[in-house]
Amino acid sequence: MTSPNAPAAFPSLKNDVFLRALRREPVPYTPVWLMRQAGRYLEEYRQTRQRAGSFMGLAQNPELATEVTLQPLERFALDAAILFSDILTVPDAMGLGLSFVQGEGPQFAKVLRHENDIKSLQVPDMGRLQYVFDAVSMIRRELGGRVPLIGFAGSPFTIACYMVEGQGTREYKHIKSMMYARPDLLHHILDVNARATIEYLNAQVRAGAQALMVFDSWGGVLADGMYQEFSLRYMHQVVQGLVRNQGEESVPVILFTKGGGMWLEEIAATGCDALGLDWTVNLGKARQRTGDKVALQGNLDPMALFAPEQAVRKEARRVLDDFGMVGSGGHVFNLGHGISQHTPVESVAVLVDEVHEYSRQYHIAQ
Amino acid sequence: MTSPNAPAAFPSLKNDVFLRALRREPVPYTPVWLMRQAGRYLEEYRQTRQRAGSFMGLAQNPELATEVTLQPLERFALDAAILFSDILTVPDAMGLGLSFVQGEGPQFAKVLRHENDIKSLQVPDMGRLQYVFDAVSMIRRELGGRVPLIGFAGSPFTIACYMVEGQGTREYKHIKSMMYARPDLLHHILDVNARATIEYLNAQVRAGAQALMVFDSWGGVLADGMYQEFSLRYMHQVVQGLVRNQGEESVPVILFTKGGGMWLEEIAATGCDALGLDWTVNLGKARQRTGDKVALQGNLDPMALFAPEQAVRKEARRVLDDFGMVGSGGHVFNLGHGISQHTPVESVAVLVDEVHEYSRQYHIAQ
Repeated sequence: MTSPNAPAAFPSLKNDVFLRALRREPVPYTPVWLMRQAGRYLEEYRQTRQRAGSFMGLAQNPELATEVTLQPLERFALDAAILFSDILTVPDAMGLGLSFVQGEGPQFAKVLRHENDIKSLQVPDMGRLQYVFDAVSMIRRELGGRVPLIGFAGSPFTIACYMVEGQGTREYKHIKSMMYARPDLLHHILDVNARATIEYLNAQVRAGAQALMVFDSWGGVLADGMYQEFSLRYMHQVVQGLVRNQGEESVPVILFTKGGGMWLEEIAATGCDALGLDWTVNLGKARQRTGDKVALQGNLDPMALFAPEQAVRKEARRVLDDFGMVGSGGHVFNLGHGISQHTPVESVAVLVDEVHEYSRQYHIAQ
Repeated sequence: MTSPNAPAAFPSLKNDVFLRALRREPVPYTPVWLMRQAGRYLEEYRQTRQRAGSFMGLAQNPELATEVTLQPLERFALDAAILFSDILTVPDAMGLGLSFVQGEGPQFAKVLRHENDIKSLQVPDMGRLQYVFDAVSMIRRELGGRVPLIGFAGSPFTIACYMVEGQGTREYKHIKSMMYARPDLLHHILDVNARATIEYLNAQVRAGAQALMVFDSWGGVLADGMYQEFSLRYMHQVVQGLVRNQGEESVPVILFTKGGGMWLEEIAATGCDALGLDWTVNLGKARQRTGDKVALQGNLDPMALFAPEQAVRKEARRVLDDFGMVGSGGHVFNLGHGISQHTPVESVAVLVDEVHEYSRQYHIAQ
């Protein structure tokens, strides 16, 4: 059944360099986008955010979410757009009551620590997340085919961290205590999260998302062995559950475990199309370890953008040189984490310029 | 010149399993100690700390520092003692004014961001750190040869983080901005720190320390390439500057970069005797990568100690199994980070027991 929002109804894509790089096809230059590119470092974002009243007010309003998603594309020649939303929309839809406290980050009204609460956790009705799918379709229309649109979700483990801790944490005491003492309860949460994430991402694709990214922001705090059992296993389940062919186009999936440099081979074995990498990973070595299976996305330290122009250019070149000669695609330039809110806007312009220009030498002339 | 505190004057060592494991000599069981084993999870520590009035009051009083250093040994059959002190004593002696604000961690009265301040930074007179060396000698005497005493320091980069940021940080904005914009200034700080650390650790050895550990708590936040240039290089300088033969005994050196699992081969190449490992690293794989050069220390997740007894035992066995058959020494059991202040004391007793008993199967009968 074709809905009015089905991909066929959208304008055709003019710049597919990002998608081709993810498929490791030849590209003329290395594409670039930035995690949290629609965000607080932009004055126009802060204005829209103020009009929305709250972070959730912004995320839940498709018009405003579309507006902020497109803002960075007006300023910079980025090769992809990413849905403006939050990884915690899914547990919010499960009834945990998400809010963002000024200066303190996300908080849930209800935390998930007792067996009864955990056992009654269910995959939410996707109707409660309709505002996300509406935003995806609206952004896709407004993009007019300029660049592809990335949809995303948090990893089952990462959203479980927030659900069990109730907020950000340094020690992960509650979720790790559950993991070591009652692994059965945590597995139950993670399975519900994985099934919800599959429905959520598939609905984003139906609404118009052209690539998907799973953010495993906290998997890297797990011990070796525990990572595989409590984070990677459920990302694998998600990847396997995605409907990745939409019409004639496949929808590439990027998995990103921050701090997961030890486990790249195992992440690549999930069947995903690309790995997100933080800056501690050497791109050349990562490529040797995984390059025949997946594309790589990353990995400039966001703090490098606080340096003067020449240093920003130098660090961008270092990342491109680390990846090295490609011949075909396979590298998507990005930061190794979200852009910092105090980043000078000029640095982003310089970065995008340097990536596009300097990378041409590494690609076969088209 | 032999001082009254020279090692010859101390009682001979009864339990040298820890030192032998670091030298990769045969041992009857895997030795164990815990980072921050003298600390807030112990009621008797909290009492002594209260008597001292402040953290620095405790660290600067050799009698009280000796008292808390010995406390965990009264409770648990640990195979090493570690000097009670702090990695920030060195910048404090440089005149930066260290204090510990309740619930907020260390803070410096003076931060190091301006060129003039940085250029005038100097290796401090070690007389200002005499309280540390006095504590080392007193602890060594009070130990009566029960177990070896570990001295320690922060890595040049890690103490520079605090010197430049002024306190703990999540983004490392100031030090990374300096690194990318004015690497010459940061190199100057790091060189002073490295030379100070060499003097500081050598003086600890002269005072009676029998092994040394360098804590690189924050090197793992650096990008690949930057880690080697700004953290590892200066730890290498420290290792090369240490006088590691004291009488007939060598003094083993352990380097620990938290989050440094990507760089183990390079850390091992500094000439250190052992690597500290956090829990993200698989001990078996780390051994394959470095085991012919160095011993390995680690790497239980401190949060595993919040689990019930049987889970603590299981996780301890998992770490020992990951390292695997040894035949000779080479593994020192530890946590992958300092013990958490809310850790149940019973878990530590269970852990030490399990490590000692279960590990015997992996060692050749003595």
